[in-house]
Amino acid sequence: MAGSASSLLAAAASSSCAAISPRLPRGAPAAASVSSPSRHPCPPIRSSPARRLRTGFVASAVPTMQPPAESKVSTVVEVDLGDRSYPIYIGAGLLDEPELLQRHVHGKRVLVVTNTTVAPLYLEKVTWALTHNNPNVSVESVILPDGEKYKDMDTLMKVFDKAVESRFDRRCTFVALGGGVIGDMCGFAAAAFLRGVNFIQIPTTLMAQVDSSVGGKTGINHPLGKNLIGAFYQPQCVLVDTDTLNTLPNRELASGVSEVVKYGLIRDAPFFEWQEKNMQALLAREPSALAYAIKRSCENKAEVVAQDEKESGLRATLNLGHTFGHAIETGTGYGAWLHGEAVAAGTVMAADMSHRLGWIDESIKKRVIDILEQAKLPITPPEAMTVEKFKNIMAVDKKVADGLLRLILLKGPLGSCVFTGDYDRNVLDETLHAFCDK
Amino acid sequence: MAGSASSLLAAAASSSCAAISPRLPRGAPAAASVSSPSRHPCPPIRSSPARRLRTGFVASAVPTMQPPAESKVSTVVEVDLGDRSYPIYIGAGLLDEPELLQRHVHGKRVLVVTNTTVAPLYLEKVTWALTHNNPNVSVESVILPDGEKYKDMDTLMKVFDKAVESRFDRRCTFVALGGGVIGDMCGFAAAAFLRGVNFIQIPTTLMAQVDSSVGGKTGINHPLGKNLIGAFYQPQCVLVDTDTLNTLPNRELASGVSEVVKYGLIRDAPFFEWQEKNMQALLAREPSALAYAIKRSCENKAEVVAQDEKESGLRATLNLGHTFGHAIETGTGYGAWLHGEAVAAGTVMAADMSHRLGWIDESIKKRVIDILEQAKLPITPPEAMTVEKFKNIMAVDKKVADGLLRLILLKGPLGSCVFTGDYDRNVLDETLHAFCDK
Repeated sequence: MAGSASSLLAAAASSSCAAISPRLPRGAPAAASVSSPSRHPCPPIRSSPARRLRTGFVASAVPTMQPPAESKVSTVVEVDLGDRSYPIYIGAGLLDEPELLQRHVHGKRVLVVTNTTVAPLYLEKVTWALTHNNPNVSVESVILPDGEKYKDMDTLMKVFDKAVESRFDRRCTFVALGGGVIGDMCGFAAAAFLRGVNFIQIPTTLMAQVDSSVGGKTGINHPLGKNLIGAFYQPQCVLVDTDTLNTLPNRELASGVSEVVKYGLIRDAPFFEWQEKNMQALLAREPSALAYAIKRSCENKAEVVAQDEKESGLRATLNLGHTFGHAIETGTGYGAWLHGEAVAAGTVMAADMSHRLGWIDESIKKRVIDILEQAKLPITPPEAMTVEKFKNIMAVDKKVADGLLRLILLKGPLGSCVFTGDYDRNVLDETLHAFCDK
Repeated sequence: MAGSASSLLAAAASSSCAAISPRLPRGAPAAASVSSPSRHPCPPIRSSPARRLRTGFVASAVPTMQPPAESKVSTVVEVDLGDRSYPIYIGAGLLDEPELLQRHVHGKRVLVVTNTTVAPLYLEKVTWALTHNNPNVSVESVILPDGEKYKDMDTLMKVFDKAVESRFDRRCTFVALGGGVIGDMCGFAAAAFLRGVNFIQIPTTLMAQVDSSVGGKTGINHPLGKNLIGAFYQPQCVLVDTDTLNTLPNRELASGVSEVVKYGLIRDAPFFEWQEKNMQALLAREPSALAYAIKRSCENKAEVVAQDEKESGLRATLNLGHTFGHAIETGTGYGAWLHGEAVAAGTVMAADMSHRLGWIDESIKKRVIDILEQAKLPITPPEAMTVEKFKNIMAVDKKVADGLLRLILLKGPLGSCVFTGDYDRNVLDETLHAFCDK
């Protein structure tokens, strides 16, 4: 009889020991390195030496794992994270392509996590996409209440309850169907359930499509602060069906725009200039403008995340305006303002402080205010926010290190920023007093 | 003025951008490869081709990061996980050596997570060890109720509450001071707080010292199943002060012995034979016997974890008896039986099933029963456990894959096992019926 080592290997071969399956092979770099041709007025994509992402139009010679030639996928942005790399598919009508979703499902059982607003609109469609011509897969769902105020431990437990009661095992897939709150909660649930199962992001808001669904930040809020409990945990893929934006309220659309603006300000001046020219088209939901804004946002985010997955430095720059913004969200009660609304006001505050520090010209500050006003986003915090309230809440921000609050501030020409704790504290005070009545 | 990339680098250099610090350098392999000399009757340590751990007595020529020559550290077992590697220090009186603990603290703030039983015994001592000659560090603590039944989300939230209310930031360290429940909860809290902060394990029970504090499995229970919510998250170090066992109740000591027995059964026949000869010395807490049992257990665990951190196969073998055991713990209400008591009965059930399958000789099954009886551990499940109850609870075990329950069973000569779903279902039924009245 064999000894322990060989017996073990035999067992591993004869039974389904490999609970964590290897990822599916990705598209061939040859196809993925083709740039997307312009279909609307937009600048050439800035190249950078650190450019690691691959983006491509689908060629007719389809390599393995690329969408078929007749696919509606207009763009695939690859998030390059070694063995945790994954594609972001962007296009109109992608939920009508079952094979796109199905290729990323692991195991036979899927749990769709969604909310009371999105479920009536898309749950049936997603269930169809998961099961069409795929009798081996069964789908269950958990429908959470909608809103930032439910991004808490009690609501998260409903996901665990459903998964345990339905006897889900490690060979399963969680699907996040909804906006940022659903994506963050489903992702954290997937990270923690049985110490980690696979998950897929299907973002249905602009906010989630351009930002929160990409990069693996997951988590929930604590009553005293945003996103204080969570995990870095990457999805198998992100599927952005831009048709889902057709049902998005205007206020939610504008909220997402604030993150689009962010990418321009922190690292992509040509993208910001494109936004200045095309904001009305974006708000009018012109498909080509939306598609370009989503694609370029995802490319920017993928580049940053590939270089700094766990936010040791660079990635923090994606939080421009967020320290002020999170304070607004926490201070006014989660959900009073949408995340992007709070970020918009926070971005103006960051620009104001950058200008007071002498780090940017007044013209840049003005352009920040102008573009956010164009998008009908708030450019000042709500009255309820006092200087004291800002300070108390910002003190528990994740970017505090050894008691020092670090901020993302604009510095230099358009498209440049710093992440630093090295600034004059009095100037932060000046900005807070300039924006708060007391 | 510099562009975005260079500004960012400048900011990273000038401020404390690197929230996640690099780990401290480890001891030089030359010193760490020296084997521990025998101080008591024990067999030579089995070598294996896959041997990756380093274990060593402290030499007088002290390399950087090794304990000083006068240190009470008798053994350092290294858990080899690349950039997540860490040492397990084993010895009597280690809490009297502040520098040992202090070198692994990151940042200026420490949160000690402990319970109502351990706090009166060791919290003051640990606080002293953290702060002695170290005025930069401040220590706070959160004292949880004691027991497996509190290993839940509500209790976990108390750790987050304390950390948030005390304004802990990413540059902090959580310290788990207690048994397996405290280690699992503190580790999961550290994994999820601000998406991950540093932590240190100070296990004070034999169960935690030989098993649960090593290897990075963290988590909490769900009302329907053990450890269903959690993370793989490695500590900075494990500090085993064997003096803490002096205050451990006999029942708790025996509970830990069941995991010691496990290592012998699954992969280390000489260790099992040593236990057969030295069980009385272990139960009488003879220091040399305890020290050897802890060291050899940690070495076995470190070897397995280094080869399979996230349990794709081999690591599951550490769960011999645990599928039956977890069912007993869940079925009788967490805390009615100690973890090791449930594992002991579960190990006998696994041995029984292995024998029924014809995979081991009757003599091995008998030796399993004999050694656990010597340790005064239960060898049958409690009456409350019915066949139906076992089946229902085992159906949500983490080792179920695509609906198939995989088990760790003994196979071959002493010290050999398999992890497999390829067994006759009727034999599982036979074993359940043999151990349950109904």
